[in-house]
Amino acid sequence: MALKGNAVYAQSGGVTSVINASAYGVIKAAQKTDFIENIYAGLFGINGILEDKLIDIAQESKEAIEGLRYTPSAAFGSCRKKLASLKDNHAEFERIINVFKAHNIRYFFYNGGNDSMDTAYKVSLVSKELGYEVISIGVPKTVDNDLPVTDNTPGYGSVAKYNAVSIREGSFDVESMHRDSTKVFVLESMGRHAGWIVGATGLAAVSEKDGPHLILFPERKFNQDGFIAQVQEIVAKIGFCVVAVSEGVRRMDGTFLADSGLVDSFGHAQLGGAGNAVSEIIKKNTKLKVHTAILDYCQRSGRHIASKTDVEQAIACGEKAVQLAAEGKNGHMPIIVRDSDSPYHWSIGDTEIVNIANKEKDVPDHFIREDGYHITAAFRAYAAPLIAGEDYPPFDQGLPAYVRLKKALVPQKIK
Amino acid sequence: MALKGNAVYAQSGGVTSVINASAYGVIKAAQKTDFIENIYAGLFGINGILEDKLIDIAQESKEAIEGLRYTPSAAFGSCRKKLASLKDNHAEFERIINVFKAHNIRYFFYNGGNDSMDTAYKVSLVSKELGYEVISIGVPKTVDNDLPVTDNTPGYGSVAKYNAVSIREGSFDVESMHRDSTKVFVLESMGRHAGWIVGATGLAAVSEKDGPHLILFPERKFNQDGFIAQVQEIVAKIGFCVVAVSEGVRRMDGTFLADSGLVDSFGHAQLGGAGNAVSEIIKKNTKLKVHTAILDYCQRSGRHIASKTDVEQAIACGEKAVQLAAEGKNGHMPIIVRDSDSPYHWSIGDTEIVNIANKEKDVPDHFIREDGYHITAAFRAYAAPLIAGEDYPPFDQGLPAYVRLKKALVPQKIK
Repeated sequence: MALKGNAVYAQSGGVTSVINASAYGVIKAAQKTDFIENIYAGLFGINGILEDKLIDIAQESKEAIEGLRYTPSAAFGSCRKKLASLKDNHAEFERIINVFKAHNIRYFFYNGGNDSMDTAYKVSLVSKELGYEVISIGVPKTVDNDLPVTDNTPGYGSVAKYNAVSIREGSFDVESMHRDSTKVFVLESMGRHAGWIVGATGLAAVSEKDGPHLILFPERKFNQDGFIAQVQEIVAKIGFCVVAVSEGVRRMDGTFLADSGLVDSFGHAQLGGAGNAVSEIIKKNTKLKVHTAILDYCQRSGRHIASKTDVEQAIACGEKAVQLAAEGKNGHMPIIVRDSDSPYHWSIGDTEIVNIANKEKDVPDHFIREDGYHITAAFRAYAAPLIAGEDYPPFDQGLPAYVRLKKALVPQKIK
Repeated sequence: MALKGNAVYAQSGGVTSVINASAYGVIKAAQKTDFIENIYAGLFGINGILEDKLIDIAQESKEAIEGLRYTPSAAFGSCRKKLASLKDNHAEFERIINVFKAHNIRYFFYNGGNDSMDTAYKVSLVSKELGYEVISIGVPKTVDNDLPVTDNTPGYGSVAKYNAVSIREGSFDVESMHRDSTKVFVLESMGRHAGWIVGATGLAAVSEKDGPHLILFPERKFNQDGFIAQVQEIVAKIGFCVVAVSEGVRRMDGTFLADSGLVDSFGHAQLGGAGNAVSEIIKKNTKLKVHTAILDYCQRSGRHIASKTDVEQAIACGEKAVQLAAEGKNGHMPIIVRDSDSPYHWSIGDTEIVNIANKEKDVPDHFIREDGYHITAAFRAYAAPLIAGEDYPPFDQGLPAYVRLKKALVPQKIK
């Protein structure tokens, strides 16, 4: 029989189109239990717990809670805060315990990526180390798709779809204009360390003319001469070329391409971004006309073109987190299990957070074409089902009717 | 009774999400007439006529023609070619006439913006000046919305919607992350001369926290100190700030902000784009963390989030063009007429192309807030109905199922 008490949910790290769908899953499932009495949310992630700023979810309207299903970003506020270890950081953990005690919090749901799972893991040690019984459950989230153990991560399917749709549309554009105008279109995707997002653009390339024609992965060093030769060959063959580049691509010497070597009028170095850097390299070495798109935050908050699969998995991970809490699985996190590729079937399992925290999963070699410039059939088989299906938000006057929460705080008990 | 003969349709200038919807309107309407026998399309705009490269629309499948309704870009290829005047360019006009004669072309439909209407106008003079009877009809198109006479232009509603949706999503992102991370989000919109597109982002700003908080119009000179003060004030008040900037914004001295003053390691000037320039200015003067999105071509080909109103008007303009041809209105172009603001009612009228060619319509003063940094209620009343409604393309395996035409050419008759 699970311990009765209150629960706190919080969001951490970079946002996604579906992190609120996980919140929706947690909240709806928690409301159905007989052991979670009140559900609170941390204002700006773990900061809200440290500062005793807890959002009272009971004060949100039913419509607002339903709206979490289709609202991008972090509705409760997110954070970039990392906790130091229990040993080095006793005061902060004492503070967390005091807030938990003051509000009778027995369940902690932390929704985030690798760094955030480190926080969830540390909180899971609190029961044993500090003697206050609390169950800490991780809820997976990251556009980067770099969490180990889980087959994929909520947030990835939607950013993958946004990027694949964008490059398909940009490619059609350049194809139709290339005779008199732009010959090369460069699109920069997120992914500082792993190439999952930039690789997903490859899903749009079905026939020879479909972009992207070249993909630059952070898992492969950038060979300028080889790349320029590829661009020229493709332009000679079909008249234009579409390039997808990850923000994290590095030169042969290990420096980021994003560090463009540009200086301003005072001689200060400028970080121009990988997309701009690749465009400049093409312009200088080929004289071709180049255009560059930097999707930036729009890609990770592009809920209007979210993947239905992703939305469903995000909700399911939230629901499973509550189930893990019911089972007393302190220090666990739901994972997505791929039961079959085609037809795609998935289910939700779980793992210990310690297997996730601070670990990263790169795109494996057999997912990247041998020459390094595109995806393989194996990548396609992996990623295609993750972008499947549409799940449009409601619109009002031409714009997505996203919700903003009231965020009324529970009366503070700790100064 | 309209002259019997063949028709040629061609696309010109920068593409939009709905130019093919106008093509669809022209083709479907032309197929229903008893005076247009065959419908051809110029391969890459006027180039296809000059080179006798005419796409035979009869050879396209029914599905492909239906697909034009929801496929972005220019399905027949577009161009940036301008014709010199009849007087200075007799040889090119002779060539056009020869191709028209060889293929018995009596109707010319030219789908484009200001520059393209100049071409359509020049062709409309051919009958009188060169003695070959042909009716030239313009079909309006431009994301820039800068054509005079018509209330708005097909292509604008969809790019406006894409930008407004993107800034709403980006704003939600920054709002939720601003405590520990990015404080300012800058989004660059198209529009070299007129601020219609960047202004449309303002539709997303309904409450105080909604971005954009500041809009930089090309119709207003950039005052760096005033702008920085605004950014700082907004960040102080709500914690973050979202800025929409037109690519065409100029400094007080008249130079483009896009000319960023950056030099590469060889000392060559770099064009960084207005978005990057604004971001650098904010970073240097405030030390705030800034992110920048450059939507570039994705915005004008973002058919997946097209405005339903825009799609319907694009088709209606195509249909009306054929009606004008039937009426023998050589040198005319359909226009969109606003019959009422609220509820929004529109109809299609027409004007002489000479009223359109080479003229530009800026955003009027009463559409821009007095301080220059946002839209007024009048802009909102104007633009809101133009982004209304969604018109999603069909999807296949998670991606929009856009069509690519066969583009089989009519046998060449002129070398």
